[in-house]
Amino acid sequence: MNKELQQVEFLRQHAKQASQKAYAPYSNFPVGAAILMKSGEVISGCNVENVSYGLSNCAERTAVFSAIAQGYNAQDIAAVVVYTPGDKAYAPCGACRQVLAEFLANDTLITSTSERQMRQWTIEELLPDAFEFDVEAFRKPS
Amino acid sequence: MNKELQQVEFLRQHAKQASQKAYAPYSNFPVGAAILMKSGEVISGCNVENVSYGLSNCAERTAVFSAIAQGYNAQDIAAVVVYTPGDKAYAPCGACRQVLAEFLANDTLITSTSERQMRQWTIEELLPDAFEFDVEAFRKPS
Amino acid sequence: MNKELQQVEFLRQHAKQASQKAYAPYSNFPVGAAILMKSGEVISGCNVENVSYGLSNCAERTAVFSAIAQGYNAQDIAAVVVYTPGDKAYAPCGACRQVLAEFLANDTLITSTSERQMRQWTIEELLPDAFEFDVEAFRKPS
Amino acid sequence: MNKELQQVEFLRQHAKQASQKAYAPYSNFPVGAAILMKSGEVISGCNVENVSYGLSNCAERTAVFSAIAQGYNAQDIAAVVVYTPGDKAYAPCGACRQVLAEFLANDTLITSTSERQMRQWTIEELLPDAFEFDVEAFRKPS
Repeated sequence: MNKELQQVEFLRQHAKQASQKAYAPYSNFPVGAAILMKSGEVISGCNVENVSYGLSNCAERTAVFSAIAQGYNAQDIAAVVVYTPGDKAYAPCGACRQVLAEFLANDTLITSTSERQMRQWTIEELLPDAFEFDVEAFRKPS
Repeated sequence: MNKELQQVEFLRQHAKQASQKAYAPYSNFPVGAAILMKSGEVISGCNVENVSYGLSNCAERTAVFSAIAQGYNAQDIAAVVVYTPGDKAYAPCGACRQVLAEFLANDTLITSTSERQMRQWTIEELLPDAFEFDVEAFRKPS
Repeated sequence: MNKELQQVEFLRQHAKQASQKAYAPYSNFPVGAAILMKSGEVISGCNVENVSYGLSNCAERTAVFSAIAQGYNAQDIAAVVVYTPGDKAYAPCGACRQVLAEFLANDTLITSTSERQMRQWTIEELLPDAFEFDVEAFRKPS
Repeated sequence: MNKELQQVEFLRQHAKQASQKAYAPYSNFPVGAAILMKSGEVISGCNVENVSYGLSNCAERTAVFSAIAQGYNAQDIAAVVVYTPGDKAYAPCGACRQVLAEFLANDTLITSTSERQMRQWTIEELLPDAFEFDVEAFRKPS
């Protein structure tokens, strides 16, 4: 197994373990995610659902939010791996793609895994022509 | 001007008018959207922001939610046009792509317009390999 | 029946009808909402769910977003009525309370109804000590 | 200083430190939160905003999502403290209240702090008559 695949498998184990901590009583679909920081640290996330479905948060976003809260920045992220239950490796939803796009470089790989599948993308492949709003250009003059 | 461009221009006028109704005091970035239904009706939306930024809603989603509330279904949507201020035509964010993906057929065009640009995509181009969760497969046995 | 109850019953019929347009395949919980504008117009909303649960939108928010998109403002809202299926009249979720708080005056009544219950609140009762962020105070000097 | 206030001050320091890690380029309003687990561990969170404002996440939710991802459950939470910049201690938004309501017991105190203020509530005080949806009652028969 080459080095890249070894790293994905290592992160997949973290993501799978994180999926066991998921709070998913509404979908019964526990997902885990693991972000490898360039420092070598792994930060995990799981989905955390809510009785008001719209306030549910996915595993990918939980991991990103945790990483930022632990002091990491955009340039610190080396790789993202997701684990979804079942045979099929599910791709991130649009909301997660948008949150990942705020922080990921385009050479950072996002890998989705299951027990039987593995799929890989860059963020540009997942969210082509990403929305990039120029805050300053629309700032109200004070 | 061919028929397709005439339709886009017609919808762009609706979207631009909708952008004037936007509630965007936090970003100062008023966006409008117009959905053409196959019935010929046009349903418009604008962004509606919130002091808690995370509860803000984009123009595209406002238009989709309104269309559903007026009794339309996935198969009723003929075209989606967005209007963003400034020179650049901004692409929809990931959240809007995910909501559009729930309802749009892949031959439905999504057009973003500004005063000087026009860009077009299918939903598959905006959200490749979309997340498709099989609810039934993960339903808890009762 | 007094005038206030007649108005609630009138809006409850609108909200119930809107609930029949709900897109709720994930929760099987179709909700409707109806907002009475001071102009006399009624704007309805339903919940619109998404396969990525976190992108689901509630009926109350759909109605508010639609009203803004149709050109109404905060001061135009006279009453909000929600219809939830089953015996129990469910209260709005925290996200909807936050969105309602952006637009409702404190003497505007929010009424939740079902086939057998009716409950009423002001927004201050639903969201006491609401978050009120002073954007200008934290604007970055340019 | 009594024991309760000492604990709040201890958590306020954690929350303030977390606020320095906030990613808040759009609001310029960096917020921190700290959750004390019954095990004694403190889990921190900060707001993580997004160019698409609606995908922004507040500090309180970042902390809750992180705690769940680290294996904690509803019954493990002892206290929640928020730190907001400026003189005024801001109360949690409706979305955060809804997410906290999913996990907090009613005797768990939520404290908001700034450099000059301190305010305390139970979740029932912040989100009275919380939305409680009975998933099983509305499950589609299979």
